Amino acid sequence: MSEMKVLIEGSGRHCHVTRETLDILFGKGFELDQKKALSQPGQFASSCKVTVVGPKGETKMSILGPCRPHDQVELSLTDARPLGIDAPIRQSGDLKGTPGCKLVGPCGEVEMKEGVIIALRHIHVSDEDGEKWGIKDGDIVMIKCGDDGPRPLVFDNVVARVGPTHATAVHIDYDELNAAALLGKDPMGEVIKK
Amino acid sequence: MSEMKVLIEGSGRHCHVTRETLDILFGKGFELDQKKALSQPGQFASSCKVTVVGPKGETKMSILGPCRPHDQVELSLTDARPLGIDAPIRQSGDLKGTPGCKLVGPCGEVEMKEGVIIALRHIHVSDEDGEKWGIKDGDIVMIKCGDDGPRPLVFDNVVARVGPTHATAVHIDYDELNAAALLGKDPMGEVIKK
Repeated sequence: MSEMKVLIEGSGRHCHVTRETLDILFGKGFELDQKKALSQPGQFASSCKVTVVGPKGETKMSILGPCRPHDQVELSLTDARPLGIDAPIRQSGDLKGTPGCKLVGPCGEVEMKEGVIIALRHIHVSDEDGEKWGIKDGDIVMIKCGDDGPRPLVFDNVVARVGPTHATAVHIDYDELNAAALLGKDPMGEVIKK
Repeated sequence: MSEMKVLIEGSGRHCHVTRETLDILFGKGFELDQKKALSQPGQFASSCKVTVVGPKGETKMSILGPCRPHDQVELSLTDARPLGIDAPIRQSGDLKGTPGCKLVGPCGEVEMKEGVIIALRHIHVSDEDGEKWGIKDGDIVMIKCGDDGPRPLVFDNVVARVGPTHATAVHIDYDELNAAALLGKDPMGEVIKK
């Protein structure tokens, strides 16, 4: 079997918003600009920023597009602490019972009742790589990385999302990126099946 | 062999100072108070804080005692970025060629020529545990942790410091603590020999 090498991408704090939330924050019919395409097909970073307000503090973050069915704020544990938000580590979209926050845009505010999470690390896998590597949607794998630096480690409990809309890449946050000292451009890791 | 269970401690940003630096920052003959004893015998956190100034920003941090032969600032990668300090990941005391910074206290300032590091993760091992586990000073081990949470992982390249003045504990920074979601009190890990 070929070595299962994979790109590792660090996600900074960001939020996803519904069409309705975007209308309130930026004005009716406002469209997000595509500042930068992301690795997952169709996903992009916009240049639009919102202020996320928690009980203890606030911070600005970018909105990723396109709009989604639910508002969702993704932070690192480091980000969450000064905001005073006790966010759980969850898969994207698994928002039941998570804390909320206030979003403030240039045209209005939205009080999110829930939707603030620390993203659970995961690996997007294309159908092609999933077949080649024998990995199915929902499988749990490990990712070995950082071997050329001072902080090599093996991330366990990495959930695989396999499907035709996925481009193969591991997504972790900056706490995790720093813990492995993945400081260079386009760091790579190795998938280890369990 | 008994399972090699070990306490994991997260170190926040802090600094160590020389007797001379303490005189300049806080006044001749000033003594650090012992706010909290640390796990390593004789080491303590004081309530004294200094402002660490980098090219892009500044932050306050506690001084740990007792005084040492060299000034040393220990940060996480997350801490270092807003200060504009490109600190390398190093073992404590291995300061050659590291960047400096300015320390500001109530009575004066000290320009450190070098000494700002991101601490390399390490494990302190008592002589007794070292003998029991077959681990010698300088050995490299792995630490498996976070198994009861959403972010289990295995830290590799954990340097062992074995000796009579050491109490057995793993030291990591907050980026690493967050990456493993070690959020409870007194998290434990398992030593894996290589």
